[in-house]
This record gives sequence, structure tokens and C-alpha cells, in this order.
Amino acid sequence: MMTPRQLGEDALVDRLTVLLASGPGVLEGPGDDCAVVEGPGDGWVTVLKTDCLVEGVHYLPGTPGEKVGWKAVARVVSDFAAMGAELGHLLVTMAVPGDREVEWLEGLYRGMNECAVRFGGSIVGGETSSLPEGVPLLISVAGSGRVKRDGWVRRGDGKPGDGLYVTGRLGGSIRGKHLEFLPRMEEAQWLVEHCALRAMMDLSDGLAKDLPRMAKASGCGFRLEREAVPCTDGVGVEEALGDGEDYELLFAVEDGGDWEKEWAERFPDLEVTRIGELCEGEAGSLDGGWDHFGRG
Amino acid sequence: MMTPRQLGEDALVDRLTVLLASGPGVLEGPGDDCAVVEGPGDGWVTVLKTDCLVEGVHYLPGTPGEKVGWKAVARVVSDFAAMGAELGHLLVTMAVPGDREVEWLEGLYRGMNECAVRFGGSIVGGETSSLPEGVPLLISVAGSGRVKRDGWVRRGDGKPGDGLYVTGRLGGSIRGKHLEFLPRMEEAQWLVEHCALRAMMDLSDGLAKDLPRMAKASGCGFRLEREAVPCTDGVGVEEALGDGEDYELLFAVEDGGDWEKEWAERFPDLEVTRIGELCEGEAGSLDGGWDHFGRG
Repeated sequence: MMTPRQLGEDALVDRLTVLLASGPGVLEGPGDDCAVVEGPGDGWVTVLKTDCLVEGVHYLPGTPGEKVGWKAVARVVSDFAAMGAELGHLLVTMAVPGDREVEWLEGLYRGMNECAVRFGGSIVGGETSSLPEGVPLLISVAGSGRVKRDGWVRRGDGKPGDGLYVTGRLGGSIRGKHLEFLPRMEEAQWLVEHCALRAMMDLSDGLAKDLPRMAKASGCGFRLEREAVPCTDGVGVEEALGDGEDYELLFAVEDGGDWEKEWAERFPDLEVTRIGELCEGEAGSLDGGWDHFGRG
Repeated sequence: MMTPRQLGEDALVDRLTVLLASGPGVLEGPGDDCAVVEGPGDGWVTVLKTDCLVEGVHYLPGTPGEKVGWKAVARVVSDFAAMGAELGHLLVTMAVPGDREVEWLEGLYRGMNECAVRFGGSIVGGETSSLPEGVPLLISVAGSGRVKRDGWVRRGDGKPGDGLYVTGRLGGSIRGKHLEFLPRMEEAQWLVEHCALRAMMDLSDGLAKDLPRMAKASGCGFRLEREAVPCTDGVGVEEALGDGEDYELLFAVEDGGDWEKEWAERFPDLEVTRIGELCEGEAGSLDGGWDHFGRG
């Protein structure tokens, strides 16, 4: 018998998604931040994403409902941002033990609503299921949005020689950022329009996990300049690579152009840092990062 | 402190959904089988739905993965059917303890894929999260589909005098039907085109819960002819009203027309039965049916 823990998250997902038949109208199936399917027409296509939060895994018991709700929606918004997409309509599945506080759940919904509205979306429905007492609460958010047919960004279209960049600073998210982060939606859309962007994803499992994923998807190797990695104050480079939950953008840009200067003028409060480049060869791995099933 | 168990499912959902702001392009928000939003144009709008299965609540441990997967998707398909909609693209969120069998999860994905393909849809992505050992596995399925702008059916558009009908037979689903049912998608689309259909929903929590919901949403009372309720062989009328998980259609039709005869020719293996009518007045309640938080 093989278990998810023995297999690890990426290999498990590979084994499961290979069982799925592709249907009509699918432009991007499993494997990227979001799926992309034929949609509204007039030059736009539809973007779909689901994600979930589990009590004790993604937040600690006792965290205010408002913060958990913000995070539940913001994680999905961050994935939309990583495709260069706009947020649309969201659905919420909540599985909750019957003995929880309704007031906490109301806070959760207020937090979800606040984040959805802040980024131009709305929650249009959902489903509530009971769990036995003592079982961790779970919230799943599914969203649809849209992106221009010629404007969406895969994680797998990087080329050797592309510069690798990240927004913001990495590491130490557990101190609070993981509950309060601002998805980089506006910044991502700006990048689509202002630089020769080739690949993009959001950093959720740590640069050490996510950078090799981008390189592998692009069929490239990568060179990481560890000393260039922008670290949160008080955080070392190991933590910056491994902590996860940064919700910053990792992206690959064809070299050249003046976009970094323009960025500094447009987003003076958010640094963007070149941390290396894609190169010929196979994507290696880096130590650290978050695997849901405990493989390092 | 108030808990979901004290409040009951419907009142909980009311308290939470009132916190949600409506956004642009929302034609039908929380409260019906699915949400409906502006979509692809050309006379079509988009239908969105999410649902979930929890081990020990919606299926017993030891149930083959294929059957659980079929059910996970079929429940969503049944909600699409109840709007008169077509199935499109699906996303899967799975939260699973790290010590489960990968082979069982593969069966789950095969079952989900089989049901999606059977009803014209496809699974385009998802998310996998770990749970601690000993916690029940949870699968959430979110779907998008489409329906003609002038062809979708609310649960709340019934009028006094409308005949109330159900497909199939009710009760006793736990003996096996709840894992193997065929969502009534083709039948629902036929009804949209062949009778003066005013309101429709699928029966998931039992006629005793769902019929009062339809009447209340329509601002009507109802008369139920209990002796007319079509019961599964070996099942009494109490169970037929209360067992739940029938996944049959409940619908309200303006009186008149020859559609029942046409139905019998088109669907000779699936009976349709008049069980009462909507009337003036307030919707009362019926004993029985399934409340997720244990209120009868």
C-alpha cells in the first residue's frame, strides 16, 4: 500500500490528474495556478480556481474568523493574479462541526466578503456541511474570473536566459502576513502590460518548492543567486526559501527593457528583485519548502 | 453563544449569506440550487455550483473510491439539472489524511471523471490538502455550466394552483441508490422544453425538507397528497418523505397540457407522479428530512 505521505504532494497530484479526461473548451487543464477554459468571448476566456483552508493546517484554532475569511479568499485571488486574470464570482464550501460559534462563522463570512469585494469579485453561493465534533473546520473557495485570450500567463512558458524576479520579501509569513497579505493582482496585471513577461506563479509553498516547479514546467534549469533573495526583516535566507505562504509573485521575463525603473515609479512601496535566471538543462531541486504530505 | 446545531442549517445559511455583498453580473445569488451569473453571451448565461462529501456523513468508510467519486460529481450534476442547465467544467478540492491509500484515491478520481464525462463535463483542476490522521476525508466539487438566458428554472417561481410533481420513487436511498444515482439532467432539460414548468429543485434532503423550501421560496403554501407519494419498494411514506438523498426532481407545473403522456413515451422507465399542488397561504413544515446540524 502506498500513501500520500510516502508519495509526496506533487507525485500524488500527477498520479491523480492523469486519470482525468480532457473535455472540449479546455485551454489549460490541471497543473498551473488556475485552469483556463473557453468563456465569454469578445477576446476573453474564463479562469477557474479552487483552494481550501483547514483549521490547524492553514490557521491556528483561536484565529479571528475575519482573518481566516480574508485568507481563504485571498489565496484564490493570488492564484488569479498569477495568471494575469481578473476575479469574478466565488463559491464557498464550509464543513463545520455543529458545536462551533455562529458569531465566529459570521466573522469568517465578513472576512471573505471583504476580500472578494476589495479585489472586484463577489461570493454568489455555497454549501454548508456538518462535521463531527472535534474535527477541524474546513473552508473551500472556488472562483471564476476572466483574462484576455492573448494575455494570460502560464508558469511553463519560461525560456533559458529569462531573468527570474520576485515581488516583496520572502520568509517569516507565519508572524502574521499569512493572514493579512494583499494578493498582487494589480501588480500582476501591470507586469502583463509593461514587460516581456513569459512565466508567472504565486509563491505559496516557498521559493524552494515553487521555483523548481516553474523551471520544470518550462523545461528549463535555473540558477538562483541566494544572496539576492529579498528576506523579510529578521529572517535568514533558509527561511526565506523554505517558510512558504509568501503570496508574492515569481516571474520570468525576457531580458531587456526599462520596466524595472517604471515599476519603482508605479509601485514605490513594493520592491521587485532579480534573483537569478532560467537556463538550459533540467530543473534541479532545492532544500526546503512546504509539502502537504510532509516530504521535505 | 449560539451554535450551528442550535440554529439549524437553513437559519445558519440565512445568517451567513446576508453578510455577502452582491456584485455585478449576478442574476441569481445564494439560495437556489445553483448561482447564475452573466456569462458567455449569445443567449447563454453561466451557472455555478459547489458541493462537498464528508466521510462518515455522506458515505461510510470502506466504500469503494469509484462510488464515492461518482457521488461527489453526481450531486453537483443533479443541481445543474435542477436549474435546467448543462454541465461544463469542474474543479475538485480534496482534503485527505496523509496515511490513506493512494489506490483508493485513484478510484475516487476515476469515479469523478466517469460521472463528469457521462454528463458532458470535464474536471479541469483542483487542490489537494493534507489532514491530520484520523480526520474524515473531504471532497468538494465546484462546477460551472451554462443555461439559456430565458430557459433557467428557479425554485421560487411557483404559483398557487401549480401541480407538484416528482420523478422516480422516494426513500430508501441508503440501500445503495445514494452512491449510484443518475442525475436527472436529460429529463430536466426535456421538462423545460415540453411543459409549462415554473419551479424546480432536486431532492437531496428529503421531500419533507425540500417541498416546504420550494413553497416558501415561491411565497406559496402547499397541499401534499401523502398517499400519492411514490415510494421505493419496501419503503413506507414516512421514509419516502424523510430519508433524503433521492436526487430526483421536484417541480411545479402550470396545470394543463399533454406533457405527462409525452413523458411516458419519452422516458418509459422513469415515472413522474403528481403529489399535490401549490396554494395560497404560507408554507408550513413537514416532519422529517435531513438537517445537516441535526434539527429535525
